[in-house]
Amino acid sequence: MISLLTDFGTSEPYSGIMKGAILSVNPDVTIVDITHDVEPQDIRCASYFIYAAYQFFPLKTIHVIVVDPGVGSDRSILAVCMGGHYFLAPDNGVLDLIFGENEIEKIVKVENKNYFLKPVSRTFHGRDIFAPVAAHMSKGVGIETLGPEISFNDTVRLGLLKPYRSENGELIGQVIFEDRFGNLVTNIDRTLLFQAFDNGDTDHMKLTVENNEIKGLSESYADVEPGSLLAVIGSMGFVEISVNQGRASEVCGARKDSIVKISK
Amino acid sequence: MISLLTDFGTSEPYSGIMKGAILSVNPDVTIVDITHDVEPQDIRCASYFIYAAYQFFPLKTIHVIVVDPGVGSDRSILAVCMGGHYFLAPDNGVLDLIFGENEIEKIVKVENKNYFLKPVSRTFHGRDIFAPVAAHMSKGVGIETLGPEISFNDTVRLGLLKPYRSENGELIGQVIFEDRFGNLVTNIDRTLLFQAFDNGDTDHMKLTVENNEIKGLSESYADVEPGSLLAVIGSMGFVEISVNQGRASEVCGARKDSIVKISK
Amino acid sequence: MISLLTDFGTSEPYSGIMKGAILSVNPDVTIVDITHDVEPQDIRCASYFIYAAYQFFPLKTIHVIVVDPGVGSDRSILAVCMGGHYFLAPDNGVLDLIFGENEIEKIVKVENKNYFLKPVSRTFHGRDIFAPVAAHMSKGVGIETLGPEISFNDTVRLGLLKPYRSENGELIGQVIFEDRFGNLVTNIDRTLLFQAFDNGDTDHMKLTVENNEIKGLSESYADVEPGSLLAVIGSMGFVEISVNQGRASEVCGARKDSIVKISK
Repeated sequence: MISLLTDFGTSEPYSGIMKGAILSVNPDVTIVDITHDVEPQDIRCASYFIYAAYQFFPLKTIHVIVVDPGVGSDRSILAVCMGGHYFLAPDNGVLDLIFGENEIEKIVKVENKNYFLKPVSRTFHGRDIFAPVAAHMSKGVGIETLGPEISFNDTVRLGLLKPYRSENGELIGQVIFEDRFGNLVTNIDRTLLFQAFDNGDTDHMKLTVENNEIKGLSESYADVEPGSLLAVIGSMGFVEISVNQGRASEVCGARKDSIVKISK
Repeated sequence: MISLLTDFGTSEPYSGIMKGAILSVNPDVTIVDITHDVEPQDIRCASYFIYAAYQFFPLKTIHVIVVDPGVGSDRSILAVCMGGHYFLAPDNGVLDLIFGENEIEKIVKVENKNYFLKPVSRTFHGRDIFAPVAAHMSKGVGIETLGPEISFNDTVRLGLLKPYRSENGELIGQVIFEDRFGNLVTNIDRTLLFQAFDNGDTDHMKLTVENNEIKGLSESYADVEPGSLLAVIGSMGFVEISVNQGRASEVCGARKDSIVKISK
Repeated sequence: MISLLTDFGTSEPYSGIMKGAILSVNPDVTIVDITHDVEPQDIRCASYFIYAAYQFFPLKTIHVIVVDPGVGSDRSILAVCMGGHYFLAPDNGVLDLIFGENEIEKIVKVENKNYFLKPVSRTFHGRDIFAPVAAHMSKGVGIETLGPEISFNDTVRLGLLKPYRSENGELIGQVIFEDRFGNLVTNIDRTLLFQAFDNGDTDHMKLTVENNEIKGLSESYADVEPGSLLAVIGSMGFVEISVNQGRASEVCGARKDSIVKISK
């Protein structure tokens, strides 16, 4: 099975062409779109999306991520085996969140041109490299045959703003993206929050974002009045700022990159 | 086979995650997207979409509908067998149009946690309940094992505005949605129209919407001059207001919820 | 395998319904979306999309194109075998670019109602004709059984503006579409460009569009400063106008249909 996460959109034929190129090598593989609508070149957003998604796929799925501002430059392409899954992605840090959670079995730098389309264009490696390489992997080609093994320390870090504790004990993070319902997804995950609040005693927590204050952690949207702000552990495992039957982004004026503070 | 109809959009990974969760249980099932772009929480629109779509799928298809403003509350989830198809949907009336056309074989309230992901989140039942339950159904799990059988009278009605005949014999309905071509789809279907007009004698019918008057029922867009309004039985079986080579919504000023009257 | 290219969008259930209708005839066929977001009725854009895509699919793929302003009129539907692929499309010229590159094995006019849904609507031939016919083709029905063979000269031409050489030797083309990254894709392909420039000596070429002048042909976006315009052979094989880390359409003021001139 192959999953696809790109910023190609679906208005042009690019994602369809990738699928054609995959199926030309392995007509029997199942292909699943995670999304093709990552904001163009937004590596950080893609890193959260693949992190939220991969664990719900069957083991041994090959996850192909093509959010790749460096296409055509000398950036590397990585094939990685970790956590029972395979990942094929540009070496730009998009896998950082997954690296942080799993023991790495193997990382190789994809260089074996036998598995590429010929000729390789300078602008569409999704079709010319990622698609055929993933298809060959799905047919059983081991990643050790794709190129030389490299170590984690030789790969590129994204430099995510990691949530941190301030001197006075506040948990500081930020909004990663706004979903189509207007929910604001932060980079503060359940584990971090529960550590900060004595194993989950979040009844008295106070979340501040753009001069709005939200008290306590709700369990579902219906816990507050329609139109009111709430904080909730969202489906991706991160703290989200939401509004019951409304759009949090409109109610609180926060947006992507807004700073979020959580205190007791 | 499993079909998916949700309001998750395709810009975030939610629909892809649902597919991962389905394929983790049954890697061999075929998944078809009906659409993920229902307006957030628009149950009524979803009810028309699934009604228009289900009958073109193979018998025994499992249709999964997740337009679910009540997620996290105590609303029920229903598994229904009717018309040779299976449906898995929140108990919010989204199946009302299909209930109206079919003999119900069985309705159960989905409660058997053996088929759920663990833990079940409060905000993403699409992934945690709908996906794995549908996948188990596709592997042959009978709906009677999903929970207690309930009767139709114990399920929630949507309260659709049904088209009706006024005292002076007019047929009154409304616009349900505008499609991307600007066509305005009404809730008046072919059967109702033909009953009102003596088995289809629609040559002299007069449709009124927002002060526009359309005479007769056209067979195709090309029956009128470019730029002119027409009424036509659309591909979903409902009366649609269209413009030859143009957008009806712009020409006639009508939109979703506009009242439509048809008289002789 | 069946590929789908339509202007139905994905916000309504139309493309999903087509897939249901295909799978009702052949539940085992693999269906791949090229895109459903061609601008409504933009035959020219669709002709470029299918041209760019088909060659990356496995041989014998059945490519179904439903960009069909003439639906419901007396326009024909064609089934074509060429270049090792099959095509099912309205007779409106959408296949012109592919006709130009391949020897035609056979063209038939699709008329055999045995393979249509019944009844056939006037507005949704995608569901009622294209889907079931393609599905039967995928089960081995030969195109000669779909209707009478016709000759290429009896089919409709699109009347594309073909790129041409002006009297003073300039190569004149135009912008076909803008992609989501703001790249402007022209109708001047690699072959034509290299013929005009003595087998690829494009170092001194000068491209003019809306009073902007671009010198030379770049190999990748990174060849110029961030924010600067460049010309590149894009992934579809056509000359594209791009901006390194920006949107060409905003920087140079060109858009779809803008005239592009290339001179020495």
